[in-house]
Amino acid sequence: MSDTDSRIQIISLGGLGEIGKNMSVIRYQDTIVVIDAGLMFPEEELLGIDIVIPDISYLLENKEKVKAVLLTHGHEDHVGALPYLLKEMDVPVYGSRLTMGIVEGKLEEHDLSNENLHVVKPRDVLKVGPFEVEFLRVSHSIPDALGIAIHTPLGVILHTGDIKLDQTPVDGEVVDFRKLAELGEKGVLVMLSDSTNADKPGFTMSERVVGNTFDDLFGKCEGRIIITTFASNVHRIQQVICTARRYGRKVSVVGRSMVNNVRISHELGYIDMPEGILIEMEEINNYPPHEVVIVTTGSQGEPMSVLTRMATADHRWVSIERGDTVIISATPIPGNEKLVAKTVDLLFRQGAEVIYEKSMGVHVSGHASQEELKILLNLIRPRYFIPVHGEYRHLMKHAKLAESLGIPRSRIFVADNGQIIEVGKKKANIAGKITAGKILVDGLGVGDVGNIVLRDRRQLSQDGIMIVVVTINKESGEVVAGPDILTRGFVYVRESEELIDDSRDRVKEALDICAKKKISEWAVIKAQVRESLGKHLYDKTGRRPMILPIIMEV
Amino acid sequence: MSDTDSRIQIISLGGLGEIGKNMSVIRYQDTIVVIDAGLMFPEEELLGIDIVIPDISYLLENKEKVKAVLLTHGHEDHVGALPYLLKEMDVPVYGSRLTMGIVEGKLEEHDLSNENLHVVKPRDVLKVGPFEVEFLRVSHSIPDALGIAIHTPLGVILHTGDIKLDQTPVDGEVVDFRKLAELGEKGVLVMLSDSTNADKPGFTMSERVVGNTFDDLFGKCEGRIIITTFASNVHRIQQVICTARRYGRKVSVVGRSMVNNVRISHELGYIDMPEGILIEMEEINNYPPHEVVIVTTGSQGEPMSVLTRMATADHRWVSIERGDTVIISATPIPGNEKLVAKTVDLLFRQGAEVIYEKSMGVHVSGHASQEELKILLNLIRPRYFIPVHGEYRHLMKHAKLAESLGIPRSRIFVADNGQIIEVGKKKANIAGKITAGKILVDGLGVGDVGNIVLRDRRQLSQDGIMIVVVTINKESGEVVAGPDILTRGFVYVRESEELIDDSRDRVKEALDICAKKKISEWAVIKAQVRESLGKHLYDKTGRRPMILPIIMEV
Repeated sequence: MSDTDSRIQIISLGGLGEIGKNMSVIRYQDTIVVIDAGLMFPEEELLGIDIVIPDISYLLENKEKVKAVLLTHGHEDHVGALPYLLKEMDVPVYGSRLTMGIVEGKLEEHDLSNENLHVVKPRDVLKVGPFEVEFLRVSHSIPDALGIAIHTPLGVILHTGDIKLDQTPVDGEVVDFRKLAELGEKGVLVMLSDSTNADKPGFTMSERVVGNTFDDLFGKCEGRIIITTFASNVHRIQQVICTARRYGRKVSVVGRSMVNNVRISHELGYIDMPEGILIEMEEINNYPPHEVVIVTTGSQGEPMSVLTRMATADHRWVSIERGDTVIISATPIPGNEKLVAKTVDLLFRQGAEVIYEKSMGVHVSGHASQEELKILLNLIRPRYFIPVHGEYRHLMKHAKLAESLGIPRSRIFVADNGQIIEVGKKKANIAGKITAGKILVDGLGVGDVGNIVLRDRRQLSQDGIMIVVVTINKESGEVVAGPDILTRGFVYVRESEELIDDSRDRVKEALDICAKKKISEWAVIKAQVRESLGKHLYDKTGRRPMILPIIMEV
Repeated sequence: MSDTDSRIQIISLGGLGEIGKNMSVIRYQDTIVVIDAGLMFPEEELLGIDIVIPDISYLLENKEKVKAVLLTHGHEDHVGALPYLLKEMDVPVYGSRLTMGIVEGKLEEHDLSNENLHVVKPRDVLKVGPFEVEFLRVSHSIPDALGIAIHTPLGVILHTGDIKLDQTPVDGEVVDFRKLAELGEKGVLVMLSDSTNADKPGFTMSERVVGNTFDDLFGKCEGRIIITTFASNVHRIQQVICTARRYGRKVSVVGRSMVNNVRISHELGYIDMPEGILIEMEEINNYPPHEVVIVTTGSQGEPMSVLTRMATADHRWVSIERGDTVIISATPIPGNEKLVAKTVDLLFRQGAEVIYEKSMGVHVSGHASQEELKILLNLIRPRYFIPVHGEYRHLMKHAKLAESLGIPRSRIFVADNGQIIEVGKKKANIAGKITAGKILVDGLGVGDVGNIVLRDRRQLSQDGIMIVVVTINKESGEVVAGPDILTRGFVYVRESEELIDDSRDRVKEALDICAKKKISEWAVIKAQVRESLGKHLYDKTGRRPMILPIIMEV
C-alpha cells in the first residue's frame, strides 16, 4: 500500500473562495463520498449566464469510486447542481426528509427519477465502503439541516454543513451539542466548518428574535401586512403564520417557489398550519385589510418577483396600496443591494410603509458568527481544520479565529477549489491539485459559453457593434455591392447619419488602399477596415464598438 | 403682477429620488440661481455609459434669467456636471476656495476658462438680482463645504448642502450653529436639507473617531500600512499624515486623483504637512516597512485603481507583500459591494492583513443621521420643508422625521426632479412640471445614447448576436452568395458547427418559402428569417440572440 493509499484526500470542488456551489469530496482508497452539490448564481461579469455549477470532471474520471452523495440541507447552493451530477452518474443520494422533498421537485423538472434518493434522520449511521457516515442535527435558515461525521479508518472527519448555534430554534430542534461534544471528546481528525459569517463579531441572533419583532409590528399595523423573505425560510414563514393567528389575520402565500416550499413543508410536517388560516390570493380582497397577511417572494428585488410586480401594479391579484405595511424580512445578497433599494423606493412611492432597515430586527442570519464558531472549535478541537463555505477573506478570518484558540497555523488549511488536502493520522499537507472550476449554464447549454463568448458579450454590452458588408466580384476583386453599414447598441442611427456616411467613406478608402497595394487576402483586408474604422469611430465618439467586416464573394 | 410672479419657484433638476447629479433651481420673477451642478455614476443597467448629468433644458430655455451657479462643495455629485453646463451658457459661479481649486482642474480638462469662477468665504453675502445670497460653514467629508441661505423678498430659502453636525471636525471648522439659529429665529420660509442618511438612527460619528482608530492601528502594526479612501477626503488624509508623524512614518501618496487633491489642498492650505514627511512612490522601498504609510485610491474596488493594481502585482512601484496592513477607510457605494469584496480577497491572498469591517471604526459617513437632522429641523423650524439629496425612501424618511417634530405634512414636499414647488408667504404647492431627466454621457457623446441603443446593448450582453448575410441577384431574386452566418457572444463557434449548419438550412428554407410565395419585400423576408431562426435557436439553446439578417443586392 502506497503512502497515498493510507491517507485521506479532502478536496473541495466548490465553496472555497466563493459563496455558493458548495461541494466537498472525501476520498479514501477506492471510496469517494461527495458532500453537497450546490449551484451559484452568476456574478455580474458573467453576462447572460443563468447559473454556475462545479466542474465535476474529477468525479467523472473516478465514477466507479463515487459511492454516495450526502446532502446537508435543501438550499440551492447545496443541492442545485445535483440534477446535473445525476445526469452524468448513477449514485445514491442521502439527505433529510425536507431536503429530499425539495430535491424531488428539482429532479422532476429535469426529467430525472427519484430512485436514487434516500431519506436519513439525525443520528442515523450509514455504511459506505470503509466509512461510517453519521448525521447530526444543526440549525440553519431552513429546517432539517444536518452536519455530517464520517468515521474513517484514520479518524473522524466532521463537516458542519451550514450552521448557526440557535439556542431557541423555532422548531425546537437544537444543534446536537452532545453529539458534537462526544465526537470532540473521542477526537476529530479533520473539521470542515462554515465560514460565511467568520468576519461578524459576536453571536448571530436567534430566529425567535424575528418572531418578537413580527409581534410588535403586527400589534401596531392597522392595514394589510406584506412580508417577503426567502422561499426556503420555512421557520420565518412559520413565525408569520403564528403571529397572524394571534392577531386574527388570514395568511395568503403568493409566488410559485414560496407556494411550493410551503406545500412541501406542510405535507412533510415542517409547518404547523392552524385550520382555515390559509387563504388563496384570489380571496385576499374579500377580507378587510387588518385581517390579511401576504407572504411572498421578492426579498432580493428580483424584477420578475411577486413583490416587484405588486409594487409596479403589474400583479394580477394584489397591488400595493396606501396603508399597506411591507416587511423586507431578508438582507440583500451581495450584488443585489441596488435592486432591493429600488424595490423599497417603488413600495414607498405606492404609499406603503416599508420596514427594511437592518436596525429593525426583521431578519437574522442563518450562519454562525465569531463567538459561535469559537464554541464549535473549542467543542471539537480538531487535529486539522479546513474553513469552508466562504470567500477568501471569510476563510482567512475563520483560520485566524482557530489560530487564536490555539490550533497551530500549520494544521489549518485555507485552500482553493481543486486542491488536494491529504490527511494522515499524524500529518497533513496540500498534495497537488485536480481540475476544478466554474461550469457556466446558459439556457440549455452547460459549459458551452467560455471566455471568448463572454469577452464578446462584454464588448457588445459597452459599445455595441458595427457591421460592414461588401460584396466583391470573385474574379475582378471589384466591389459590386456595399459597403453597407449596420450598427446595434452603438449610436442612435437616425441622428448619426453623418457618422455612418463618413464610416462608409473610410471603408471605401481602406478597400481602395488594399486594391492599390494588390492585397487580396481577406484577413488582411478585414484587419485594414477594422483598424481604419476603429480609429475613426474612437476619434469621433470616444467609443470602441466591435467592428465586424463581412466580405461576400460572387 | 400675476400670482406666479409674486411667488418663488423651487425646482430640482437632479438629486430627488436618486443619490447624485444634485442640482436645485431657485427662481423669482426674472432671476434664476442654480445650486450645484453634479454628476451621477451610471447604474448597472446603463450599459457602457460613463456618467449621467442632469437635463438642463429648462436652464437653456431661460438662459438670460440664470444669474449665478452656487456650489456647496467640491464632490463630483455637486460639481461634476459644471463643465457641461458652462459649455452651454456663460454664468458666474460661486464657491469656496477649495471647491474652486477642484473645479478649476475640471474646467481645464474640458478646455474651459476659469474666468467665471469666483471664490466666496463663509458669511460672505452676495447680491444676485433681488436675492441676497449668504454662505455659511457646514461640515462634510470634504473641507470647505458651505450651506446657502438665499434672502428673497418673500423670506429666506436655506439649502444645507451636504451636511453633518461634526462637533469635533478635523480642521476645527464647526458648522455655523449660531448663523443657523439666527436664521431660524428670524424665520426661514423654505429649508432644503440633505437626506442621504435619513434612514440611519442616532448620530453620525465625528471624523476624529477615525483618527483614534488610526492611532490604535498604527500602534500595533509592524509592517507597512496602506490606507485607501476617497481622493477628496482631505481630512482623512490629514489624519493619516498626523498619525504617521506621531509614529515616525513617511507618507507616500499614490494615484493620480489622490495626488491632485493633496496638491491642491496643500497649496490652498487645507492640509497641514510637516516638512519632509511626504515621499515619492519611487522612494518607498528605500525605507523599512515600519517607516512607511501609503495613501491611495481604490476604496471602491475599481479595477484600474492603484490598490487593485497593487493587489494583482500590476503596479509599477508597489506590490502588496506579506506583513502589509491594508486599511479600507471607506464604505462601498451601493453597487460596488462585490468589487470591494473582491479586492479585499485579493489583498488577503497576497498575504496582507486587511481591515475592512464596518465594526472596526476606520470610516465614518459625511452625512447627518436622524438625530442630527432633527437638530437642524428644530433649529430652523422652516415654514416649508423640502428633503433633497436622496433616493425616494430617504426623502420619505426625512419627511417623516420632520412630521414627527410637528411640521405639518401639508408643508412638506417630497417631490420628483422637474416638479415646480411654488412658494408664497402663506401658501406653497406643486405647480406643474418642467423637463428634467438623465442625460447619458458615453465617450464624447452627450445625450446620443437613448433607450433603443441601451435595449440593444442589453440584448447583446445577454445572448449575443447572429448575423445572416445573403447576396441576391436583383433581377432574378436568386441567391448568389451565402447565406453566411456569423455569431458573436452567442456560442463558441468551433464547438457548434452543427448548430450553425442547421441555422444555415433554416435560412435557406425561409428564403425558399418566400420565393415560392413570391414575397419580394425585404422587410417581410427578413422577418421570416428572424422568426424561423429565432425559434430554432431557442429550441436548441434556450437563448435569444439578436438576429440580424442582411440582404445584399447585386
